[in-house]
Amino acid sequence: MSGNEKSANVVWHNSSVDKLDRQKLLQQKGCVIWITGLSGSGKSTLGCALSQALHSRGKLAYILDGDNIRHGLNRDLSFKAEDREENIRRVGEVAKLFADAGLICIACLISPYRKDRDSCRALLADGNFIEVFMDMPLDVCEARDPKGLYKLARAGKIKAFTGIDDPYEPPLHCEIVLKHEEGNCASPYEMAETVITYLEENGYLRA
Amino acid sequence: MSGNEKSANVVWHNSSVDKLDRQKLLQQKGCVIWITGLSGSGKSTLGCALSQALHSRGKLAYILDGDNIRHGLNRDLSFKAEDREENIRRVGEVAKLFADAGLICIACLISPYRKDRDSCRALLADGNFIEVFMDMPLDVCEARDPKGLYKLARAGKIKAFTGIDDPYEPPLHCEIVLKHEEGNCASPYEMAETVITYLEENGYLRA
Repeated sequence: MSGNEKSANVVWHNSSVDKLDRQKLLQQKGCVIWITGLSGSGKSTLGCALSQALHSRGKLAYILDGDNIRHGLNRDLSFKAEDREENIRRVGEVAKLFADAGLICIACLISPYRKDRDSCRALLADGNFIEVFMDMPLDVCEARDPKGLYKLARAGKIKAFTGIDDPYEPPLHCEIVLKHEEGNCASPYEMAETVITYLEENGYLRA
Repeated sequence: MSGNEKSANVVWHNSSVDKLDRQKLLQQKGCVIWITGLSGSGKSTLGCALSQALHSRGKLAYILDGDNIRHGLNRDLSFKAEDREENIRRVGEVAKLFADAGLICIACLISPYRKDRDSCRALLADGNFIEVFMDMPLDVCEARDPKGLYKLARAGKIKAFTGIDDPYEPPLHCEIVLKHEEGNCASPYEMAETVITYLEENGYLRA
């Protein structure tokens, strides 16, 4: 194809690369794994373990962590109610793009309100939003308090903190519940395997 | 690893999956190809051709198109000056995430101001922001007018339209210039090959 004036008038026919093509290349299906739960419930830890488990199987995953995204895309947002909603909306939209790109996108956000999570679910095709509920009792999360946030919330230094003075609405019909049971606390590795099994059984780890 | 109470106290050591790991899996380097130019200069057409050329080489690319993103992530933004800036900022942040995920992210936006493009460049490590300038004369773009926007701008129905009553600041030091020359207009296929050659020569198509 040499350059000539005519080519400017030729309509370029896009047999555009689409999600199916990328999935075939990656040998997996693009989807969003949305990990929700209280602060300290182990969302990011599960996200990391899952990311490792997928990578070891040759699968491409990417973590969108609520905290990290606030340093970049969402750095203009505060923690007031409408900004928290917008924070979740944007992560949902970006997760959708990653799923469309063919990746297994792992989103880790408290995302305490059902309506916000359901809005993100509605962005994706049926089945491609896999909600994972970290069902850990508040007292366990508060005892862990990895970022010292519960302490600040109890002291009144953080207002509207989920679980303390703002509600967490547990999912009613989510795909996976990871439950903390007295005397039987699964390791991140085991929890990741539960999610992997779900992905395998539902065809996400092949094109 | 069987579940037991102790595991709750075990610190989970993340040998977290990072960009280098994903690049090795994909056999490419994550980067952003930022295509800038007037409306009608062929940004999206080049983006599509490039996406096909990369896919045919087994490389994973993803297009962030300014228009498409406005239907999702940026649907809260108008076309007033500060919102156009925010539009570009967000696309830059998302492009950064895609590059970190190991993808070759192709962003197609008019992005008329140097400072906005330079802000996006600053988000990425040196070399990972590849600016491609569609250097097409205004009269050529206006004659094409694929969306009928120039006509509306000339009629005063769109205000602050780039090239008509709002400036386009051409890049001063961009990586690739695709120039329209009288009687020698490269096809999208040829332009894509120019970008591919740049990527090959600079090591982006291997891990």
